[in-house]
Amino acid sequence: MSSERLIYLPLGGAGEIGMNAYVYGYGPKDKERLILVDLGVTFPDMDTTPGVDLIMPDMTWLKERVDRLEGIFVTHGHEDHIGAIAHMYSSLNVPVYARAFTANLARRKMEEAGHDPAAVQIVQAWPETTKLGPFTIGVAPMSHSIPESGALVIDSPAGRVVHTGDFKLDSNPLVGEPFDPEMWAEIAKDGIQALVCDSTNVFSTHPGRSESELPDEITRLISEAKGLVAATTFASNVARVKTLAEAGVRAGRSIVLLGRAMRRMIEAATETGVLQDFPKVISPEDANNVPRDNLMLITTGSQGERRAASAQLARGKYRGLELKQGDTFLFSSKTIPGNERGVIRVINQFSEMGVDVVDDSSGLYHVSGHANGPDLEAMHTLLKPRMLVPMHGEHRHLRQHARLGEAKGIASAVVVNGMMMDLTGDAPKPAGYVDTGRTYLDGSVKYGAMDGVVRDRIRMALNGHVVVTVLLDEEDEPLGEPWCDVKGLPETGSSNAALVEVMEEDLNQFLMRAGAKTLRDDDKLEQELRRIARQSAHSEIGKKPEVTVVVSRMR
Amino acid sequence: MSSERLIYLPLGGAGEIGMNAYVYGYGPKDKERLILVDLGVTFPDMDTTPGVDLIMPDMTWLKERVDRLEGIFVTHGHEDHIGAIAHMYSSLNVPVYARAFTANLARRKMEEAGHDPAAVQIVQAWPETTKLGPFTIGVAPMSHSIPESGALVIDSPAGRVVHTGDFKLDSNPLVGEPFDPEMWAEIAKDGIQALVCDSTNVFSTHPGRSESELPDEITRLISEAKGLVAATTFASNVARVKTLAEAGVRAGRSIVLLGRAMRRMIEAATETGVLQDFPKVISPEDANNVPRDNLMLITTGSQGERRAASAQLARGKYRGLELKQGDTFLFSSKTIPGNERGVIRVINQFSEMGVDVVDDSSGLYHVSGHANGPDLEAMHTLLKPRMLVPMHGEHRHLRQHARLGEAKGIASAVVVNGMMMDLTGDAPKPAGYVDTGRTYLDGSVKYGAMDGVVRDRIRMALNGHVVVTVLLDEEDEPLGEPWCDVKGLPETGSSNAALVEVMEEDLNQFLMRAGAKTLRDDDKLEQELRRIARQSAHSEIGKKPEVTVVVSRMR
Repeated sequence: MSSERLIYLPLGGAGEIGMNAYVYGYGPKDKERLILVDLGVTFPDMDTTPGVDLIMPDMTWLKERVDRLEGIFVTHGHEDHIGAIAHMYSSLNVPVYARAFTANLARRKMEEAGHDPAAVQIVQAWPETTKLGPFTIGVAPMSHSIPESGALVIDSPAGRVVHTGDFKLDSNPLVGEPFDPEMWAEIAKDGIQALVCDSTNVFSTHPGRSESELPDEITRLISEAKGLVAATTFASNVARVKTLAEAGVRAGRSIVLLGRAMRRMIEAATETGVLQDFPKVISPEDANNVPRDNLMLITTGSQGERRAASAQLARGKYRGLELKQGDTFLFSSKTIPGNERGVIRVINQFSEMGVDVVDDSSGLYHVSGHANGPDLEAMHTLLKPRMLVPMHGEHRHLRQHARLGEAKGIASAVVVNGMMMDLTGDAPKPAGYVDTGRTYLDGSVKYGAMDGVVRDRIRMALNGHVVVTVLLDEEDEPLGEPWCDVKGLPETGSSNAALVEVMEEDLNQFLMRAGAKTLRDDDKLEQELRRIARQSAHSEIGKKPEVTVVVSRMR
Repeated sequence: MSSERLIYLPLGGAGEIGMNAYVYGYGPKDKERLILVDLGVTFPDMDTTPGVDLIMPDMTWLKERVDRLEGIFVTHGHEDHIGAIAHMYSSLNVPVYARAFTANLARRKMEEAGHDPAAVQIVQAWPETTKLGPFTIGVAPMSHSIPESGALVIDSPAGRVVHTGDFKLDSNPLVGEPFDPEMWAEIAKDGIQALVCDSTNVFSTHPGRSESELPDEITRLISEAKGLVAATTFASNVARVKTLAEAGVRAGRSIVLLGRAMRRMIEAATETGVLQDFPKVISPEDANNVPRDNLMLITTGSQGERRAASAQLARGKYRGLELKQGDTFLFSSKTIPGNERGVIRVINQFSEMGVDVVDDSSGLYHVSGHANGPDLEAMHTLLKPRMLVPMHGEHRHLRQHARLGEAKGIASAVVVNGMMMDLTGDAPKPAGYVDTGRTYLDGSVKYGAMDGVVRDRIRMALNGHVVVTVLLDEEDEPLGEPWCDVKGLPETGSSNAALVEVMEEDLNQFLMRAGAKTLRDDDKLEQELRRIARQSAHSEIGKKPEVTVVVSRMR
């Protein structure tokens, strides 16, 4: 046994918040049997990934060892945990295990991608377990901002690992199972070798609040509102959507769900039984026959996403519905860092319409789904793990979380994507480094973050693009003058002549003087033409554009 | 007199936070003599303005009436109030008035732009006034996060307008004049016709805090820190820079100012006498001879700007200085919405180095420079204006501020850029709409936001760019096959052949079948080639790129 080891290798999610993908392995070195926990996405932005549709972890390491992979376990249904499964499935091709609601969401994605939804197998909650190679794995219910979040209890000959997934300590989450300290004491009673633990809210210094603190305040707000009321939250926060809907009903309002994700999520939660007694909803069409004072819209787009229902309402009509002076719009959500501009745009658009926007600055209308600093410490105390490996956080979160562990005398390590750790002994031990990275889904194509595609897009966005075309005859002599096409550049610069004409003149001067050797050499010619075009642009407009040179030869 | 009127026209800064530019006029309709208050910039972002250097208000309306313009008054030296003056000066060409420190900053900018710095004239504080046409204008000291912020007291035959500029109610701002309620009571004693008032912090519901609350806490933090300490704040917050430096000295540390803006601002404040007794600073070179425990760096880059000193330190060395495990980095600042990603990147880079980052989440190390909601109400009470026009805010801020005014019985109006208001009567009266917009400075060229340059850049960034080149002979017959160059697109798509080859094949198929009429018609040919290239790309890679078609004819 002593030559066998238990390894942990994050391929995504450690050193960032997003695209979770954690490998565990057990066995002799480099022959460990492997499982993957979660396979999520992260979302692109204009600054770093313009035009990209989704960002996924680079699975190269795992694909090359797919013969050793037993399966994929999924902790819960958030996109950063399940979003990449269907996109990566064909190259991994192992069973996916999840509880019923999560499996329902994953299967919908598999079907959309043309895979067999039956590849996703439903497992029951702890104490039920699944045996996969050297591992016995149970899904222990956790409270979070989506139903059926689960921590994985991963047993191997090297002991028990608890991989928390995303969680908070909520004794009354309204929908889904409460956090159950007795179950956890039982799970921990024979010792926990390693706790691999959510770090998202480690910097929040007050204990987390329960979902059950919200219904009264939300009901009060909606009851006092005049006109139409709309509210947004993450569709996957089924408990919140239910709270909003019930508050609306109590205020005598008919409920309309707006946005595809909102309808699908409620459907999945109802189908799988995690959601019961959701109020009756009416269609947007029927809503037109209901007085505005008796309507409540629950919409997608809490992050200001341009195409979501909230942003469309902010710009005008959405499915025949429209907000007006005196209506109320509630953000029952927080803004994820980086999404501020989009959310603020929506708020100002509503302000222009005279709609009263209520956000969570009062703290009354939203609670987080992640354990805060004191809650994490309570979890450490409850599980008394031999070692702590913080995950699901940026570097600053992991570091702070490891400090909390160390302060309690728990061997803790900051482990980021690509660091393989041996969890077999008394403390996490480095066991090698693996190249990790990001795979972009762009239209229907997947490519690597370092392939240069996005770099070229960013350069064109920052610098504009000039296309220089030159024709050469059979003797490699210029045929006519070179010409330029520009995109993303101003028409005129300092000389007040057209920018393309100035560049064409400079390029022509060069061509007329260029020696036969240069004119015969494609690379040399391109390089010189590029240099001159950039120089010419710089003196005209003060910036050096990207240049594509097209040399056409008659020979 | 009854045919004369007092007008207010924001050309920037009303309905946004940034690029302030407010016109006041007095006289017969369309013959009013005008003054401009402030002429600032706003900063570009990758989402909406990639590659742009600065954003300024479109001054077309004012340029067309420059014969009626008496001068430009500047309230204070922040970029969003003075940043566009030097760029716009040549087309306005009127005197600029400011107090000494602000004038010092403005003159540096004028010199850099090649203008005569003497165009900026120094005025003394209230009760001194300047007569400009029908106006008599005084600059009444206000406390803010930069020294010498001033409200303008604008007298005309229609009464007194107070244009607050940016302000807070700080009785002890450490550097610069305190807020002086007695002076304001005196200014208001004969009645204020209109209060045009800062709205930035209207949603903050607690009274604002004084700059003087910070030195003790900052001193404590720095005294307890081991290793090197670095701190960042806005360079223009001279009081804060002084607080940081003094706290460093008290902790036995030598002070290094890092970043050009930091050194320039301290220089300007010292030259003009607003800053006295600033601690001795040492150069980065001399800092290398000082033990790390006795050093303190004060750096630019509180917003995570990539090229500022903070971000450079976070990436490694800056001017020979380097942070290490156990050092402390303090953000004595708040993150402006939209800058979160950059700031978080810097924090995580420091975390990777083992540097302890302290931000203002505790509320101990930063106070805002703007009046909060209750402070604005106190200002309304103190000045008792006949009417209130909120400015310096997004729509949501202006609307909320107007509500505060209305609740007190003050005639209030939400006035955004381009709305001309007549302030002569009992309440603000709409007096017309003016086309406003944004002017981009891009390299050395200025162009309008709607000119399409930036739109094309964004499209290339989102969709990539294909250049299609076709040669036609004297008979308009294709000469060889068409070819494609791509930028910002993946090399291969669904068919596993090179994307350019698939497109070239599809384009060639079209050309071989195209009739003479199409081949003779440049527009038609381009249109068809573009359509086919996009279609071909879409079937290969699932997205439609931007396409430039270059048709070369031998005739």
